[in-house]
Amino acid sequence: MATIQNIKGMRDHLPQAMLLRQHIVTTLQQVCERYGFEPLQSPVVEYAEVLEGKLGDDEKLIYRFEDHGGRRLALRYDQTVPLARVVAQYAGQLAFPWRRYAYGPSYRGERPARGRYREFYQFDADIVGSPSPLADAEIVALLSESLAALGFPDFVTLLNHRQIIGGIARISGLDETAAGGVYRAIDKFDKLGADGVREELLRSGVDPAAAEQILALVQIEGEPQAVLDELDARLANDERAVAAVVNLRAIVAALAGLGIPAARYTIAPRLARGLAYYTGLVFEAITPHWPEGSLLGGGRYDELIGQFAKRSIPTVGLAFGIDRLHDVMEQLKIGPQPTGTAVAFVTIFGPEQAQASMALASELRAAGLNTLLSLEPNAGLGKQFKEADRKGARFALVLGPDELAQGDVVVKDLRSGTQESVARGAVVEWIGNSLNLSTATP
Amino acid sequence: MATIQNIKGMRDHLPQAMLLRQHIVTTLQQVCERYGFEPLQSPVVEYAEVLEGKLGDDEKLIYRFEDHGGRRLALRYDQTVPLARVVAQYAGQLAFPWRRYAYGPSYRGERPARGRYREFYQFDADIVGSPSPLADAEIVALLSESLAALGFPDFVTLLNHRQIIGGIARISGLDETAAGGVYRAIDKFDKLGADGVREELLRSGVDPAAAEQILALVQIEGEPQAVLDELDARLANDERAVAAVVNLRAIVAALAGLGIPAARYTIAPRLARGLAYYTGLVFEAITPHWPEGSLLGGGRYDELIGQFAKRSIPTVGLAFGIDRLHDVMEQLKIGPQPTGTAVAFVTIFGPEQAQASMALASELRAAGLNTLLSLEPNAGLGKQFKEADRKGARFALVLGPDELAQGDVVVKDLRSGTQESVARGAVVEWIGNSLNLSTATP
Repeated sequence: MATIQNIKGMRDHLPQAMLLRQHIVTTLQQVCERYGFEPLQSPVVEYAEVLEGKLGDDEKLIYRFEDHGGRRLALRYDQTVPLARVVAQYAGQLAFPWRRYAYGPSYRGERPARGRYREFYQFDADIVGSPSPLADAEIVALLSESLAALGFPDFVTLLNHRQIIGGIARISGLDETAAGGVYRAIDKFDKLGADGVREELLRSGVDPAAAEQILALVQIEGEPQAVLDELDARLANDERAVAAVVNLRAIVAALAGLGIPAARYTIAPRLARGLAYYTGLVFEAITPHWPEGSLLGGGRYDELIGQFAKRSIPTVGLAFGIDRLHDVMEQLKIGPQPTGTAVAFVTIFGPEQAQASMALASELRAAGLNTLLSLEPNAGLGKQFKEADRKGARFALVLGPDELAQGDVVVKDLRSGTQESVARGAVVEWIGNSLNLSTATP
Repeated sequence: MATIQNIKGMRDHLPQAMLLRQHIVTTLQQVCERYGFEPLQSPVVEYAEVLEGKLGDDEKLIYRFEDHGGRRLALRYDQTVPLARVVAQYAGQLAFPWRRYAYGPSYRGERPARGRYREFYQFDADIVGSPSPLADAEIVALLSESLAALGFPDFVTLLNHRQIIGGIARISGLDETAAGGVYRAIDKFDKLGADGVREELLRSGVDPAAAEQILALVQIEGEPQAVLDELDARLANDERAVAAVVNLRAIVAALAGLGIPAARYTIAPRLARGLAYYTGLVFEAITPHWPEGSLLGGGRYDELIGQFAKRSIPTVGLAFGIDRLHDVMEQLKIGPQPTGTAVAFVTIFGPEQAQASMALASELRAAGLNTLLSLEPNAGLGKQFKEADRKGARFALVLGPDELAQGDVVVKDLRSGTQESVARGAVVEWIGNSLNLSTATP
């Protein structure tokens, strides 16, 4: 049968990939809980009506179907709209500000490509119900601490504000709708450079003098305070932009208060981010080792979460794309490179020694060592060593008739190939010491 | 809108429920890895063809739909059929015996009821590609160690073998198809009692003498060796049943070798389990504190996993139903009863003290303490204490002008209501000590 395979764009994650993915998720979960975020899980399936009317052209990508009672259902395409539903549905049980994280798959019927999947996993973290710039700072700090905890050697978070981009675009003199072209042009700065953006601006109907002003503004760089001072001066006539500068000043001060190193963030007036629903801070994390794009981004979106509750519920958040992080970490060799879960493999010399080997495996497990037990009392030791090696175990243990008589265990280090007789009662300690030693001197 | 809610039978898990669910999953994962199992994740969506033709009447419960290219897709209804697909598709990359675990949601369009959901989460563990009774024993040991690790105070695993049930049923003299009625009758023993089962057997066409023999056999109880001896003697004419007794003897010996306490398992000839695909060992864990049913079960199914690979791939495994475990643990108050993730809540006395409070929060987090930071420099302390309490934090910390001048921090224990001034440099240690103390004397 041709279809006995996975659907294109919906991937199987075999053990080696899964171990890295689990490491990523566990790390993010740990950092989130360090910041007091709480877990939420909503179903993968929602009423289609909940999801519709929010994605524009992309709505055609939603997987929709009818259930057994003829109700119109859909697979969620992100975890933000379900969050809005949860916030409306359980209003009485949730106390704001509410820090929640959520992890799970979402679905879009896109054409699969490198880095673009039909089933993709996201880890979202949002602070719901607070307009405070401290909330913005906590989210950026969470991002920064998460990437550091994952082992990214250097990265920087670009910070901007929707109303700074707005102020810059308003220089064009175009109305709010036409200004969309200006946003899109600015957003491509890193790809097109100044000349490319100038061309796009002129094509959008911006006059040449305004275009130069815009280009100058989006290229401002430097220490956050200096950039903000300059934006403040040059956008002084735009009330909303001035308020945005005040907001970014508070966020930057809080980042310093939270101990986030200054090298890890910068104000980038060129950062637009595509999504129209952002209302305040926008940000993106990048690393020079991955020039193909950003690692992830987020921002403040004060109008989206309250859409079902029918009131404004100010919210700031981000989504880690697990597939993207996985791809990048695998390519850059960041994080653990495990080949399996087991540290020790207990062989079985023969049927007579099986009970003793089982007891040894049980003792290692009780001591917290991940241990595989051979299932084949009648297989030769050579074959069992090969299996131990293939499973990525570091040590293979042998309890033959001689060892049982002498009260010891042969421990073979599958990495170095050496082997040693260790007293039966000291095996757990011996392995523990060897592991600590090899962690200390890699 | 009426449909701004979750679909019935597909549940939202709010933080308190999620914390227990995550505890369950993390515990199972840890025990699995202790036994050398490796994680696998396959997509939630499969080609409908992969899933069809295996569920009998229940096939109508599958959620099916067409994708954007007109392909027939379906939501998986378990993680076993996808495992069979993975085993066929990646044959070259998988070395048997392969111990894999998998966690995720599955879907069935059933009528929702207490304990029966349309979206349900399972944690599966299987040993693929080994006919060894050691593999059976490892799975039963894994079950036993998992329930112990989750904190179940007492439980027992009922063990039986498909061919012992088969041998008992063959006493009826009915052919293999008609014997299905006998299996079903025996399976209801715990519900109907001897009289009820006798009635069902007679109704199935079993003659009265055979019915009495069957009833006597399914009621055999005692030490595993004694039960097996008696089954051996009374089914001596049935070759398959005799081989099954030999197999169970090896499994029970291995359980003892693996150090599983004898009180945690028993041979139960009455255990039939519904699923026709079991070929060897079958088992179920029960606890007297939950008389409504079994906690979970599993067994050996040697023909299912090789169905796409077109060869027999002997496999033994089990599936923990997370929803069932969650319901039972919640009701029996087993496991942690967390109200939130945060230990400490750092208040902000006023705008002047905000930076100092942020630095304190950052220090607590760096020390590994889950810490919430107030987002409202202008809210009163009373309101902030209330928020800390509502979030389940144990301690609220205050850094006011006096504390800053004196170099200390007020720590309020929200459980006891007492508060204390602690030197700024000693706060982390003080909280750590208080937590250890309250763990030691609950």
